[in-house]
Amino acid sequence: MPLVVQKFGGSSVADVEKIKNVARKGIREKKEGNDVIVVVSAMGKTTDQLIAMAHRITNDPNPREMDMLMSTGEQVSIAMLAIAFHSMGEKAISFTGPQVGIITDSTHRKARIKSINTEKIHKALREGNIVIVAGFQGISTENDITTLGRGGSDTTAVALAAALNADVCDIYTDVDGVYTTDPRIVPKARKLEKITYDEMLELASLGAKVLHSRSVELAKNYNVVIQVRSSFDDNPGTLVVKEDKSMEDIVVSGVAYNRNETKISIIGVPDHPGVASEIFSKIADAHIVVDMIIQNVGGDGKNDISFTVGKEDFVQTLKISKQLCEELGANEVRSDDKIAKVSVVGVGMKTHCGVAAKMFRALANAGINIDMISTSEIKISCVIRSDDLDKAVQAIHDELELEAHPS
Amino acid sequence: MPLVVQKFGGSSVADVEKIKNVARKGIREKKEGNDVIVVVSAMGKTTDQLIAMAHRITNDPNPREMDMLMSTGEQVSIAMLAIAFHSMGEKAISFTGPQVGIITDSTHRKARIKSINTEKIHKALREGNIVIVAGFQGISTENDITTLGRGGSDTTAVALAAALNADVCDIYTDVDGVYTTDPRIVPKARKLEKITYDEMLELASLGAKVLHSRSVELAKNYNVVIQVRSSFDDNPGTLVVKEDKSMEDIVVSGVAYNRNETKISIIGVPDHPGVASEIFSKIADAHIVVDMIIQNVGGDGKNDISFTVGKEDFVQTLKISKQLCEELGANEVRSDDKIAKVSVVGVGMKTHCGVAAKMFRALANAGINIDMISTSEIKISCVIRSDDLDKAVQAIHDELELEAHPS
Repeated sequence: MPLVVQKFGGSSVADVEKIKNVARKGIREKKEGNDVIVVVSAMGKTTDQLIAMAHRITNDPNPREMDMLMSTGEQVSIAMLAIAFHSMGEKAISFTGPQVGIITDSTHRKARIKSINTEKIHKALREGNIVIVAGFQGISTENDITTLGRGGSDTTAVALAAALNADVCDIYTDVDGVYTTDPRIVPKARKLEKITYDEMLELASLGAKVLHSRSVELAKNYNVVIQVRSSFDDNPGTLVVKEDKSMEDIVVSGVAYNRNETKISIIGVPDHPGVASEIFSKIADAHIVVDMIIQNVGGDGKNDISFTVGKEDFVQTLKISKQLCEELGANEVRSDDKIAKVSVVGVGMKTHCGVAAKMFRALANAGINIDMISTSEIKISCVIRSDDLDKAVQAIHDELELEAHPS
Repeated sequence: MPLVVQKFGGSSVADVEKIKNVARKGIREKKEGNDVIVVVSAMGKTTDQLIAMAHRITNDPNPREMDMLMSTGEQVSIAMLAIAFHSMGEKAISFTGPQVGIITDSTHRKARIKSINTEKIHKALREGNIVIVAGFQGISTENDITTLGRGGSDTTAVALAAALNADVCDIYTDVDGVYTTDPRIVPKARKLEKITYDEMLELASLGAKVLHSRSVELAKNYNVVIQVRSSFDDNPGTLVVKEDKSMEDIVVSGVAYNRNETKISIIGVPDHPGVASEIFSKIADAHIVVDMIIQNVGGDGKNDISFTVGKEDFVQTLKISKQLCEELGANEVRSDDKIAKVSVVGVGMKTHCGVAAKMFRALANAGINIDMISTSEIKISCVIRSDDLDKAVQAIHDELELEAHPS
């Protein structure tokens, strides 16, 4: 029998009516002749509320106890969903992560799945149940409850799909698929039928919040077909799949953006080996993730080094940079928190040229100045003024004719 | 090292400030040189809220899933309490019922503890931790989460105290001990230093809500010393202990009452063997607990059978009684939901006489009519008009001179 894993996030189970809606989706899939596993997150804002409650005691709560606390959120969801299935006459049984044998390492609050014991799920499926599994949580080899960190429920769903060799892992969200760009900015943005894992990874890292990178990486490694689809209708969504020949013809899949960027430049850094390493080691030591890095060689034996970090890390990074500036004997530090990043993503860029030129032309025609440029095999990113972002996304989308279905 | 088990109910952990207060009590006990285990219930009205949420889906939710749902309440409490201990610089670790090996039968929503695996607790204590255990919950031999039903957290605390051979099991509540009667009715009511298990059982079954009968029975069977004491101060409370010689001199420990009573009489029941059995089997089949039963033999070969049930069962019991009346060929059914029960409890009654006479005299002098009387070895109960209850409690308390400390 085909096996479908369905995953529903917090907003899809935020109240009793929405939970019933999730149950209807599970039953529909079952009636179509599939075995069904449903993975759910905590209801609505539950996890945030639990964290806030702990923070009323201390700003630095013990990670083991935070996992003990937070994991209750999903446990409430699975029980409520099981009760909803029963009320509709459907056999269903719920399991916590620990119960179902999702074994993780002991890194509390961001544990990684080591193995999944599928026996209990197989048994429950054989007995005719829809199997409900709590997302986001597992159990360490020390028998402690762990949580998987951001995007954890997606990770649970994909890991289960991989372990059980599911035919598809349906990720239900409040959007009905992956678009060529954000429809709030470009109303003519088009829903994609398919996208590759690598493109999805670039989109996720660029701030498109549809899927967390970890779950996409996991899906790529185990070749799990993900479908991003809507909680609110039954239409097919976007498939995230392995790259195939036909997809190379589609040069560009989409235009992504990220408003959560700030830029820091250390000007006049003496040019000797190990300088860059020294700078970015110091920043990494503070657990700050740097996105783009650009180094311009100056004529005077000195370099200008610019890089971007998330808005939440801006103040701390600026402080570290000023210390570094002094230690290294650089001239000065400049910063800018009014920037944004716009990117074009597509596996076809590996074999097609001219995309960058089109992107730069679109920006130029719209009168938008490019501050930084960075490229990968399947992506070109430009840093621009944040005020120009909407105009930039629209212009690039138009220039690349993404609203038209590729024939 | 002496071992103290502390138990705090929902109202004692209702918010962050109260949880910190619980942590302070644990630390005080630890600083006095004890090993400390803290058992907590769900915060405030959490359990009721979870039940209400499930009932918004169906009136008859699956018991296994209800246990999955409800057990989250205590899990939140133990994590929050651990975080509070840490914030005060104290080593502490929390465990759910399943984690700590509280093995129960599979009767969901009212499971009974079969065994406790103390190894994990001993290890955590040896490592210098205050050990926090979720009340009310365990794990069945099928690996499902179970809950212990009403008074479940008291039961958890007493069971742990028994399994670990604790020196005392302190049950913290919103009253500071067990009184000779309800101080809201009799302001001069006196706090008892000691009370026997049997007396406590009679008081619990009579509606005094201090301790649930199950936990007292368990304490009696394993000879666990319980102390009922206040969450709001550090004064000693009332010890619930095994009967000893000295206690027999105290004839009466207290006056209890129960407003949650209703009376049903089936009049003119043909007197043949098996009639009573037929009546009370039918009522038991509907899961209704009958309290007092009185049968008067009439002169005409017919009996009048009267009994009391809780207010919540009144309507259903009345319906069953009317069916029975017809089936048995009895004359009629009478009912009264304006009654209350007042009782005198004391182990000394086993060896002293005259208590009943004093009680009846007190009621007569106060002009109160007695409707039904029932007695046990250590208790005398009278059913009276509910309007007369406060007056009756005061009169009996005065007549027996309970406000005076027995010397």
